[in-house]
Amino acid sequence: MKVGVLGTGAVGIAIATALVEKDHFVMLGSRTTNNEKSSTWAKKSEFASQGSFSDAATFGDLVFVCLNGEYALPVIKNLSRESLADKIVVDTTNPLDFSKGMPPAIIEGFSHTSLGEEIQAAQPDAHIIKTLNTLNYKLMVDARIVNNGEHNLFLSGNNNEAKNKVKHFLCDNFHWKEERLIDLGGIQTARTVEAIVPFWVSVWQTLGTPLFNFNIVK
Amino acid sequence: MKVGVLGTGAVGIAIATALVEKDHFVMLGSRTTNNEKSSTWAKKSEFASQGSFSDAATFGDLVFVCLNGEYALPVIKNLSRESLADKIVVDTTNPLDFSKGMPPAIIEGFSHTSLGEEIQAAQPDAHIIKTLNTLNYKLMVDARIVNNGEHNLFLSGNNNEAKNKVKHFLCDNFHWKEERLIDLGGIQTARTVEAIVPFWVSVWQTLGTPLFNFNIVK
Repeated sequence: MKVGVLGTGAVGIAIATALVEKDHFVMLGSRTTNNEKSSTWAKKSEFASQGSFSDAATFGDLVFVCLNGEYALPVIKNLSRESLADKIVVDTTNPLDFSKGMPPAIIEGFSHTSLGEEIQAAQPDAHIIKTLNTLNYKLMVDARIVNNGEHNLFLSGNNNEAKNKVKHFLCDNFHWKEERLIDLGGIQTARTVEAIVPFWVSVWQTLGTPLFNFNIVK
Repeated sequence: MKVGVLGTGAVGIAIATALVEKDHFVMLGSRTTNNEKSSTWAKKSEFASQGSFSDAATFGDLVFVCLNGEYALPVIKNLSRESLADKIVVDTTNPLDFSKGMPPAIIEGFSHTSLGEEIQAAQPDAHIIKTLNTLNYKLMVDARIVNNGEHNLFLSGNNNEAKNKVKHFLCDNFHWKEERLIDLGGIQTARTVEAIVPFWVSVWQTLGTPLFNFNIVK
């Protein structure tokens, strides 16, 4: 599959690398083409390439948004509607403000909305699926490294067919167990799941490792 | 032990009832003395009594705050400092705004603070411990009813001795397992744990039952 990955931080590199290893063709998108990080990364495999955010969005049949929460929305707004029309866009972003220390707060203006909803509003022809934002990047791409994959991942999005495709993609490529994936409903539920990330940081600080997850028990 | 419980909603009644059954002397506090709910409740046991919020705060050597998040802070501010001085106060409240539908939002003005912190600031001579706010009331008072008690509860508070006393109290009275209690740190961490409750409501709506909890796995 052709996949575009927007963002060259730890999340973007982890997802792009994991997908190249699964023989997907991946274009890593960054603000400027031929930036050092993405150029170095793209040399690692014949399945890997790099370009601008717009290049990567156009390239991918599936697109992952792995941008810093502070910059995500302007970047997405700047993409043409054609580049993402009818595509599934997996949004992993979090609107976190680290400026006042740890744990972070939610960025001002996101208490009654979410990046998931705003990204969907900015690209109405795309199918935005919010997921993976509640995990460390290592765990995103290999669910097995914690408790044999027995823990939960949450999905929000308006299009059920797109959500099911993302579920299968995560199971096939990142070793998630289908019965552990929890569909929270429409994209508006992204706001509840983005809001737990400061708590995730608190637990991380307490446990001393980011390699944990929440397992819902009944 | 003499325990004051502020609030006659589902949480207050559940906690007061569970503690009476454990032979604690419990005074249930409400806005007006002899309101119907607390008068009926107080007749159930010789260990049970009722009074005003101020009566219950004064009565308890340990005090539980089980008020609606919208009214909690004005009630606490209205109590004399003497009534709570040097006491452990367990704060179970959540600043939730249900006015715009489900899932709820965090009440305006609480994006950079929490009821835990504000209650501590309003009663500086008391030791506020934030806990139990991430659970259904039935589960608060009997951890065993989900997954044999194998799931987590979080505590925030500035005084470690008070926090340890609350831990033991929860284990002795509500069947929590000590190794499942997670100390997140000072009372400022209450803001991260209050912020997960809209997500808890989303999961409740998805699962169709409020009798679940989060179990952290590594």
